[in-house]
Amino acid sequence: MTAPFSTSPPYPVVRLQPKANARAIRFGAPWVFANELVLDRRTRKLDPGSFAVLEDSARTPMGVVTVNPESKIIARMMDPDPNAAIDHDWIAARLRRALALRTRIYDAPFYRLIHAEGDGLPGVVIDRFGEACVIQPNAAWSDALIEVLTAALVEVTGVTTVLKNAAGRTRSLEGLDDASGVLHGDAPTEAVAVQMNGAVYMADLIEGQKTGLFYDQRPNHAFAAGLSRGGSVLDVFSHVGGFGLAALAGGATSALCVDGSAPALALAERGAQAMGRGDALTVRQGDAFEVLTAMAQEGVQFDTVICDPPAFAPAKPALEKGLRAYERVARLAAPLVAEGGVLGLCSCSHAADLAQFRTACVRGIGRSGRRGQLIHTGAAGPDHPQLPQLAETGYLKALFFHL
Amino acid sequence: MTAPFSTSPPYPVVRLQPKANARAIRFGAPWVFANELVLDRRTRKLDPGSFAVLEDSARTPMGVVTVNPESKIIARMMDPDPNAAIDHDWIAARLRRALALRTRIYDAPFYRLIHAEGDGLPGVVIDRFGEACVIQPNAAWSDALIEVLTAALVEVTGVTTVLKNAAGRTRSLEGLDDASGVLHGDAPTEAVAVQMNGAVYMADLIEGQKTGLFYDQRPNHAFAAGLSRGGSVLDVFSHVGGFGLAALAGGATSALCVDGSAPALALAERGAQAMGRGDALTVRQGDAFEVLTAMAQEGVQFDTVICDPPAFAPAKPALEKGLRAYERVARLAAPLVAEGGVLGLCSCSHAADLAQFRTACVRGIGRSGRRGQLIHTGAAGPDHPQLPQLAETGYLKALFFHL
Repeated sequence: MTAPFSTSPPYPVVRLQPKANARAIRFGAPWVFANELVLDRRTRKLDPGSFAVLEDSARTPMGVVTVNPESKIIARMMDPDPNAAIDHDWIAARLRRALALRTRIYDAPFYRLIHAEGDGLPGVVIDRFGEACVIQPNAAWSDALIEVLTAALVEVTGVTTVLKNAAGRTRSLEGLDDASGVLHGDAPTEAVAVQMNGAVYMADLIEGQKTGLFYDQRPNHAFAAGLSRGGSVLDVFSHVGGFGLAALAGGATSALCVDGSAPALALAERGAQAMGRGDALTVRQGDAFEVLTAMAQEGVQFDTVICDPPAFAPAKPALEKGLRAYERVARLAAPLVAEGGVLGLCSCSHAADLAQFRTACVRGIGRSGRRGQLIHTGAAGPDHPQLPQLAETGYLKALFFHL
Repeated sequence: MTAPFSTSPPYPVVRLQPKANARAIRFGAPWVFANELVLDRRTRKLDPGSFAVLEDSARTPMGVVTVNPESKIIARMMDPDPNAAIDHDWIAARLRRALALRTRIYDAPFYRLIHAEGDGLPGVVIDRFGEACVIQPNAAWSDALIEVLTAALVEVTGVTTVLKNAAGRTRSLEGLDDASGVLHGDAPTEAVAVQMNGAVYMADLIEGQKTGLFYDQRPNHAFAAGLSRGGSVLDVFSHVGGFGLAALAGGATSALCVDGSAPALALAERGAQAMGRGDALTVRQGDAFEVLTAMAQEGVQFDTVICDPPAFAPAKPALEKGLRAYERVARLAAPLVAEGGVLGLCSCSHAADLAQFRTACVRGIGRSGRRGQLIHTGAAGPDHPQLPQLAETGYLKALFFHL
């Protein structure tokens, strides 16, 4: 498979409307929206993912972009150098820079290697699990150049397996299909054991959610682990045991993981067994809201309760409803926290900003009749770098309250 | 010395104006401003610090407050129970709750024990250094009840020394003097060795800045330590070596501390010696802006540069000037960061919020000709709990950029 468009310069030219914020783009804003670009016939006919030289309305070149006429984000900045060629070497250089940062921070090759715009590869997410990488090519250019990207990735990292995960919600916004598959090497036949914060997580790279494991919560897992010693922990929306297993590694006496997915809970149990703490973990499958309600009726309490739900407000239209759902989680979870205990509440919703999410949490805690001090405001770890100009990339919020 | 006002109930009554936001106070907002309270002659004549029962404009009791007619913050909520008696036992209960949280999180008794409103003791800051505590009684009530507070503190913690530090800027806003002294036991004759993140800090509890050491940066020190292995580190506005010594503990090959205070730098050197890393630390005394400028001319670069200046924007009137100073720090520091290195920029300014500070930093980095990814947004550690209703208590911001 090769790209349906020419990947070698000279690239066609696309031009900003006079009303577009050229200054913001010069200062690093990475996106051009459809109403900011001159949509002449030639631009509209560009193949999704095509590279082009972006000019401002005065015809000054601003850099190389990737254009997708089918997306609201019609152009994404690839390189502020208008003479850049987006080829194997260019991609490899970005991968090397990203790898150097991770190698500096982490002892073992388990991390998000590429966090899209934050690592200079727009729309591309790559998670690394030792000798395997999982790519989410969520922008059209990366889908078209997937072979070049895979070859550069193998060259730079030396991994033996590269998988493609096409399940991301954002791919449909780019007009891309949802066909996952093996890009290089052999698909793993077993879940991969990942060590983080002293815990062991079993990641299913083929059938799991997203790329199989959520690396973004690593610093917040560590925070939870640091206050769990000698206590009981409830991990709601646990997936493969993110907070629960971290708490066990931090010395929790027991952890209860609640999730809707039986396969995820089975992986959590295998993780606990691999840690030699199989006896300390129990799981409960079911709808989290129903389980929280039932537990309140049962009158059980925990020293630490953490709720890390899926994105209730992934985009603006779902914001109000999403904030109500976060408030409800807080209201249902707070009664399960023992006096003097800690409640951790997380959101991975792009649309809900920190202040809105905090307000929803405080309101929910208040409605349960409790009050809390805020002892930790966490974000994603440093393997999820943000472009400072793109607040949207700061999606993850973790608030810990002392009740 | 005893309080000039009655500390036992029944307390006098003060009343909210109809325009005051009673709802916010019921939901946990801890402050009443002067224009929100009925200022009858009796209220105006209350001794600074006096306890009173706060009523809403419909005469419904809302809790016990401490009143200071000399302060813009005319009343601070002590207890939402209008029948509460603010006495030794009440204070001891708050101290015990705060101590339980710290004991849960920290292995050793070195932390901020009381973070004012965040720990339910309005205006009171207490830092613990093993067997010694330093109190900053920054609200009138705590100055008046300092003996009760000291006795409760000794009872709850068992510390042998309690010092009073009256140098805080906020004391003058409350009409309080700046007389520091020894409240209990004997003043330490030597700097205290404090272990944090594997580093050793020498804290001068008598002559040092604030209480002698800044515990609030602990998690951000840890972050810096985690990316310093094998690299060189520049710590500007280092005080007693906060980031520099943490980086050495994390495996940095060398650290250079820059500060205006020779005594602080001498303590940094003693800390490095206590860590067995005396050879790896160098210090440079001088104005940070001048030193940064001189270093750029010298052409030196470091793998990690961290700037943790004093509050350039402590209050709203200083905001614009303060933001310009933060931008200047970023602009001067960025050229000293090696390609692929990390720049850490901190602000402890109440008046500059996170978005404003981030914008100033990004602008300064941009003006230096560099670009950065944001890899860490840090706040104060969990021994600095925030009242979620009081955004002002979230003063500390630490941004780390990969350049």
